[in-house]
Amino acid sequence: MIIVIKTGTPEAEISRIGQELYKSWGIMSEKIVGRNKVVIGLIGDTASLDPMQIQETSPWIEQVLRVQKPFKRVSREFRHGEPSDVIVSTPNGPVHFGEGHPVVLIAGPCSVENEEMIVETAKRVKAAGAKFLRGGAYKPRTSPYAFQGHGESALNLLAAARAATGLGIVTEIMDTADLDAVAGVADIVQIGARNMQNFALLKKVGAQDKPILLKRGMSATIDEWLMAAEYLLAAGNPNVILCERGIRTFDAKYARNTLDLSVIPVLRSLTHLPITIDPSHGTGKSEYVPPMALGAIAAGTDALMIEVHPNPAKALSDGPQSLTFDSFDSLVREMAVIGKAVDRWSTQPAMATA
Amino acid sequence: MIIVIKTGTPEAEISRIGQELYKSWGIMSEKIVGRNKVVIGLIGDTASLDPMQIQETSPWIEQVLRVQKPFKRVSREFRHGEPSDVIVSTPNGPVHFGEGHPVVLIAGPCSVENEEMIVETAKRVKAAGAKFLRGGAYKPRTSPYAFQGHGESALNLLAAARAATGLGIVTEIMDTADLDAVAGVADIVQIGARNMQNFALLKKVGAQDKPILLKRGMSATIDEWLMAAEYLLAAGNPNVILCERGIRTFDAKYARNTLDLSVIPVLRSLTHLPITIDPSHGTGKSEYVPPMALGAIAAGTDALMIEVHPNPAKALSDGPQSLTFDSFDSLVREMAVIGKAVDRWSTQPAMATA
Amino acid sequence: MIIVIKTGTPEAEISRIGQELYKSWGIMSEKIVGRNKVVIGLIGDTASLDPMQIQETSPWIEQVLRVQKPFKRVSREFRHGEPSDVIVSTPNGPVHFGEGHPVVLIAGPCSVENEEMIVETAKRVKAAGAKFLRGGAYKPRTSPYAFQGHGESALNLLAAARAATGLGIVTEIMDTADLDAVAGVADIVQIGARNMQNFALLKKVGAQDKPILLKRGMSATIDEWLMAAEYLLAAGNPNVILCERGIRTFDAKYARNTLDLSVIPVLRSLTHLPITIDPSHGTGKSEYVPPMALGAIAAGTDALMIEVHPNPAKALSDGPQSLTFDSFDSLVREMAVIGKAVDRWSTQPAMATA
Amino acid sequence: MIIVIKTGTPEAEISRIGQELYKSWGIMSEKIVGRNKVVIGLIGDTASLDPMQIQETSPWIEQVLRVQKPFKRVSREFRHGEPSDVIVSTPNGPVHFGEGHPVVLIAGPCSVENEEMIVETAKRVKAAGAKFLRGGAYKPRTSPYAFQGHGESALNLLAAARAATGLGIVTEIMDTADLDAVAGVADIVQIGARNMQNFALLKKVGAQDKPILLKRGMSATIDEWLMAAEYLLAAGNPNVILCERGIRTFDAKYARNTLDLSVIPVLRSLTHLPITIDPSHGTGKSEYVPPMALGAIAAGTDALMIEVHPNPAKALSDGPQSLTFDSFDSLVREMAVIGKAVDRWSTQPAMATA
Repeated sequence: MIIVIKTGTPEAEISRIGQELYKSWGIMSEKIVGRNKVVIGLIGDTASLDPMQIQETSPWIEQVLRVQKPFKRVSREFRHGEPSDVIVSTPNGPVHFGEGHPVVLIAGPCSVENEEMIVETAKRVKAAGAKFLRGGAYKPRTSPYAFQGHGESALNLLAAARAATGLGIVTEIMDTADLDAVAGVADIVQIGARNMQNFALLKKVGAQDKPILLKRGMSATIDEWLMAAEYLLAAGNPNVILCERGIRTFDAKYARNTLDLSVIPVLRSLTHLPITIDPSHGTGKSEYVPPMALGAIAAGTDALMIEVHPNPAKALSDGPQSLTFDSFDSLVREMAVIGKAVDRWSTQPAMATA
Repeated sequence: MIIVIKTGTPEAEISRIGQELYKSWGIMSEKIVGRNKVVIGLIGDTASLDPMQIQETSPWIEQVLRVQKPFKRVSREFRHGEPSDVIVSTPNGPVHFGEGHPVVLIAGPCSVENEEMIVETAKRVKAAGAKFLRGGAYKPRTSPYAFQGHGESALNLLAAARAATGLGIVTEIMDTADLDAVAGVADIVQIGARNMQNFALLKKVGAQDKPILLKRGMSATIDEWLMAAEYLLAAGNPNVILCERGIRTFDAKYARNTLDLSVIPVLRSLTHLPITIDPSHGTGKSEYVPPMALGAIAAGTDALMIEVHPNPAKALSDGPQSLTFDSFDSLVREMAVIGKAVDRWSTQPAMATA
Repeated sequence: MIIVIKTGTPEAEISRIGQELYKSWGIMSEKIVGRNKVVIGLIGDTASLDPMQIQETSPWIEQVLRVQKPFKRVSREFRHGEPSDVIVSTPNGPVHFGEGHPVVLIAGPCSVENEEMIVETAKRVKAAGAKFLRGGAYKPRTSPYAFQGHGESALNLLAAARAATGLGIVTEIMDTADLDAVAGVADIVQIGARNMQNFALLKKVGAQDKPILLKRGMSATIDEWLMAAEYLLAAGNPNVILCERGIRTFDAKYARNTLDLSVIPVLRSLTHLPITIDPSHGTGKSEYVPPMALGAIAAGTDALMIEVHPNPAKALSDGPQSLTFDSFDSLVREMAVIGKAVDRWSTQPAMATA
Repeated sequence: MIIVIKTGTPEAEISRIGQELYKSWGIMSEKIVGRNKVVIGLIGDTASLDPMQIQETSPWIEQVLRVQKPFKRVSREFRHGEPSDVIVSTPNGPVHFGEGHPVVLIAGPCSVENEEMIVETAKRVKAAGAKFLRGGAYKPRTSPYAFQGHGESALNLLAAARAATGLGIVTEIMDTADLDAVAGVADIVQIGARNMQNFALLKKVGAQDKPILLKRGMSATIDEWLMAAEYLLAAGNPNVILCERGIRTFDAKYARNTLDLSVIPVLRSLTHLPITIDPSHGTGKSEYVPPMALGAIAAGTDALMIEVHPNPAKALSDGPQSLTFDSFDSLVREMAVIGKAVDRWSTQPAMATA
């Protein structure tokens, strides 16, 4: 349930309404400040509340509306239709993820392999226009015998790449025991597809402060995905970015997954959270990445996450889906054409903050 | 197996090679004239043939290559990497479907309801830039009690709309018994998703002359879809256009199907046939259609098939996924922006041939 | 909507009610005679009818109930909860498919290859306890270059096997043009998975008299499958048997399909039609067939359809999933143990009618 | 790679071979004692090893065989074809899970609600024949606002039920932080479907001593599931039981999941690990549970996990899929009929150890 507040309502009255809700019905509430409106969101079992009674709490209340979805805080209605603007601090300055902003590029290798490769990659993707470096320190691998990531030492290398370029860092957390270490380096903490319903992890990551990238589970319904995001918001962290990375269907012969671009308009109608598309995992083959990246921008994504490796043929993981530096440069040029056509491209020169 | 012929080879020599293949090994062959090369495609059981022996048939043979796919005639290799250019005659002149050509728009209602609505729709979609009118005379419906289409009388109405606008007609065939009637009116005969593996229908439609739009089955793998197209080419008709219309996945709560845009680069690498995307059936909701149409163009589709209805709320079928005239006009303007950015948009004024 | 008639209602009154329904509301109706009750089923748009008004039509009416499902004639409610008993004539006498009867065995090769193999197979599966011989004359094949079945000549061989053994024949129809030929030989006409939503075929097969085996489409929902059966009943043929043959899921590495035994209790609750399980296509591997056949009997299937071939290694199609004669004999012995345990096994000696 | 040792080989020689493997090639190995044969399993990168060279290590080596699967320790080949016999200690004595043993029944509520209900349930399911009580202390719930389980206090209630009945306890671990508490009470630690690829959890649970029940992920391929089990064995715990609980397919209208009984023969051919079927989560509806439980026994399952609740209508979670005490009693009687028919039923009186 949400309460839409009239324009010009004094701060003190908004606080009073919140206190009144708690006193009279034991209901917790959150103030959400949008561009045009202030809204009070009500959490918990509001099924038995009478909107009319709440309306009478204050003459400054414009409307009382029920949220008709299983997810509450992540629902578009909870912000009265207004999209979130997730702002991520990076050494090069704040980066905005959201509908009104340029498409954000996140690029880098699947795994952090050594200092030279990660710093070199960071420099190249920054020069091409990326704002974030991705790179795995802890890698979820199907086989216990496969390379599991360099772990904590890889986090140090990500920190070095961050220091060298000013790029923000996106890296995955797999174990709650590593949370301090990961959140200490990452500007965005990633929760991977296989952990989308690892509720213990969601609760703990949601309780820390760094923005979170939540990948969609391999066969997660949209409701399940948004409910996973709801865990994060319910734990206190509103800075959540959703990331589609390909779903599992009946055909995996040519593409590793089926990248579901059609989720973009569905998410737009349901949630205020920003959307990222990962065409690298989504397709599993580097030659399929460019058309999907271009399609994603035209379809309205807010960000893209793309695997780039100095030498994909020798990558320790996911080589077949990684772009070379040159092919990434070339893709960015193509993306800029679409991005400008839809007025979602940064006109700022990429090197300005270097 | 294909034989690549040297540039400048006399016609008589090409014929001689074909005859020689038949005489010596009992193998049927087809001459395929590409933009740069002439290729002879070999059909049938070529597994036991020795490429070296075939090479010796003529000094004009440049190369002999095996087609490594289960599908042969539809494989990209069969045309030595060159895309097909499917040319469809319409009263307004020939329309090209293929990689080197502007994106073709096919628009119209799910079902033909009456003369006024179909002629009015034809005029409006033509004015907006469509080259083809779609409209169902025979409708595949899950329930035997649902409206099954107006049948043969609807074909006459399509003919009237064609006469009034010069647009080409795309309409579905469901029963081999209706083939003459449908092919008599249609400029492109459509085979629907539910009949993609109706092999009796494929054989008969493949044996007639009108170009064919082959929709992907709801859970057809890419191989199965291309093998269905192979049935059409094997029956003699090379003018086949593939149409993705959404696949069945584990989540149908918000969108009716999962529109698989990621099939575009996969098909490009496997086949020379042109690609159409149907975002209307693919999503099942009119508000999801525009982002998917834009995404499809950026991802490289050759054509789009979009449902448009004068009054979606009163449509006899598929109303929720149909655009109004005004929303289609508006979508075409948005598509033109992307289409021009990727250099795949007709610069010809839409009304020129009216 | 159904009307339950009181026990002892005179025939004339039942007819009068039917006429009255038609006169007053233009509604068609069908009399359905169950073991305990007579029911009148109402077809067509009954949404606006008032049950109270219908109740007043006759004092012999016990109850008027709405059918709450999209399917009507196939719904369990339409027979007031009573299962159908589909009786199929064969030279050896009538065979009953249904809940109160022994499990029926249908066995034979994927394709009819020659007279010797089909007659020999018929004799062996009869000796083991089968009541029906299956065998494909027309084969739906993914590739146009694969063996398509021997067609009409294979139908003659099936007739010969029928004559030699008295077994009923189950064979597939793919093209409405072959209907007379197929129905002339078959005791049960099979509609294959790929044609489950070939509505033109359903309408024509539903309009002939032979019982029909309707296979589930590869990714057909239960509703779609039952609606396909509804097409058959709506066309006039009440003798429909449903056949589960494996569905398409995300994993086809080891088994060709996922045999969905869990559909058995779901169908039981929704429909009165008998159920057959095909573990051969369902798994695609002969070693998986016996456990699935045993599981199906324990879970309550009414019939089993099993591929048996004199020499699976040399079969023209589907060899890997065919049992040898000896392994079929051995499976029948295991099935008899389960069948007797659940009181669904024929105690009649298998050879009695030979 | 495995080394099959000749019957009668001295212990010292087996040790020597292991040491030799490590010295010469740096390869770790494990001795596996089967009923008929002793096998040495080689772990790690054995791709470059020459079987001939290893054969020459000792005249007591019968055969050296490559394991052709991505999973090693869990593969059937790794035990030279012999099934595992997982023995679980309970207060009532050891219980065997495996092919040569009676079907084991695990029963109980979804969540532990209070002492009375859990102790009462334990007594009733024990009287019916169950050897284990299931009950959730920590519950994975899609919504953060749904009941999350009573946590540690529920573990104490499970301990009380164990003390009262002597039944073994099966309960789920969701967070590595709870491992000591859960393993302190559980006789079998359960890893749930949503955590099947939570590799951090797998590694830690695999490193403790209690037997483990590993549920299949909702859309896990068989390879992924077995690789998850491989994580557990690689971490040191060989006592792993696999549990199928329904997979996600395209149809969830009637059943919550599609219970995949066809996985039974596939697992049998691939792995030596015992198999449990959970028809309660697998179908989501109590009326579907009995046919599926019966089918599972006939198809060869080693154990069944069934939800039973004193009052399903008031259950805090998963009520619709829970059996009442009476319906569980009645199901056990039906299961005994099938279990005895296939010689997989305990003839020991159920109450003997009470």
